Amino acid sequence: MQVEKDFAERLERQVRFIVEIDKLKNVIRRTYIMDGLRHENTAEHSWHIAVMAMVLAEHSNQPVDLSRVIRMALIHDIVEIDAGDTFIYDAQAALDKAERERHAADRLFSLLPADQAAEFRALWDEFEERRTPESKFAASLDRFIPQLHNYKTQGGSWKDHGVTYDRVVAKNASMKDGSERLWEYATGVLDKAVAEGHLLKTR
Amino acid sequence: MQVEKDFAERLERQVRFIVEIDKLKNVIRRTYIMDGLRHENTAEHSWHIAVMAMVLAEHSNQPVDLSRVIRMALIHDIVEIDAGDTFIYDAQAALDKAERERHAADRLFSLLPADQAAEFRALWDEFEERRTPESKFAASLDRFIPQLHNYKTQGGSWKDHGVTYDRVVAKNASMKDGSERLWEYATGVLDKAVAEGHLLKTR
Repeated sequence: MQVEKDFAERLERQVRFIVEIDKLKNVIRRTYIMDGLRHENTAEHSWHIAVMAMVLAEHSNQPVDLSRVIRMALIHDIVEIDAGDTFIYDAQAALDKAERERHAADRLFSLLPADQAAEFRALWDEFEERRTPESKFAASLDRFIPQLHNYKTQGGSWKDHGVTYDRVVAKNASMKDGSERLWEYATGVLDKAVAEGHLLKTR
Repeated sequence: MQVEKDFAERLERQVRFIVEIDKLKNVIRRTYIMDGLRHENTAEHSWHIAVMAMVLAEHSNQPVDLSRVIRMALIHDIVEIDAGDTFIYDAQAALDKAERERHAADRLFSLLPADQAAEFRALWDEFEERRTPESKFAASLDRFIPQLHNYKTQGGSWKDHGVTYDRVVAKNASMKDGSERLWEYATGVLDKAVAEGHLLKTR
């Protein structure tokens, strides 16, 4: 009986977390979905990155535990429910990003039963620290996909925010820490974007 | 050199798939996101189900390979890009659902390199067949979450489409094949929905 009661309490907490993270569907990113009709939200972005991990794992510089890459992809942006999406080219917002996101992680993951809160937090910390092959590769996917979104939408968020080729390279070249092949592919996309007039070389 | 060329071709196909599945963000479900402000799309729903697998795996009737449950959750609805979302209470649309979705799977997964096309198709077939512990549990999650969406939105898609308690139970009781605990929890939610006037007992 006690075991069943404990499970009922665990399930209650777990459902509370599942309901809470529905809010990620309302966190709006600067990128547009690829038909250009609206901005992307962070929940659907997280899905996209997780499927990309399944498809692209062979291009990681180092062998990875795919399951951990996927799980990291799924939860890496949950903190945005409280912290909001921080645009990679926004220097002002970058100043307190880490602190805002840490507070968010404290609140959100602690909705879960303690063992799972620790497990999710460890995964999120691993992603943030970029020290393991899995986190480096997951971060590469996260930097890779906006290039496709912006290219497919004729400049998309680059144009909206006056972002030039030089800044894109400066902010995204760390992609090669996780996957040199993805970075090589991405530079090809950026070159095409410049040639086709969707991305200015410099200001 | 040949190896690099092969990888470049693989990557080109993989990127084509990744770009194609962006369309899942435009497939609209009957459920509302939990603040009730808009309908949910299938990409963000797939993310939600995958995170739920991480959180709720302990409630599966049988032990599961979590990684396979998550990967199934991520791709189970990709066929909706071509086949559209089929409302669970729409008897007419159910008639040719399997055929529409099979055609969609044929086209979409074959965008990938052949080995990955086979791998993704096998995962999708496994989900559809509901014979393994992993597919039964993944299907349970898929039947569980709309009950929370509808309860949290004061009846949501139940009210929009005149769905009664009896039909909800008839269509979702198979949830217990994957998780008796989730089904028990869900029936509690349905009882509350009836008591609070969000769900009619019968027509």
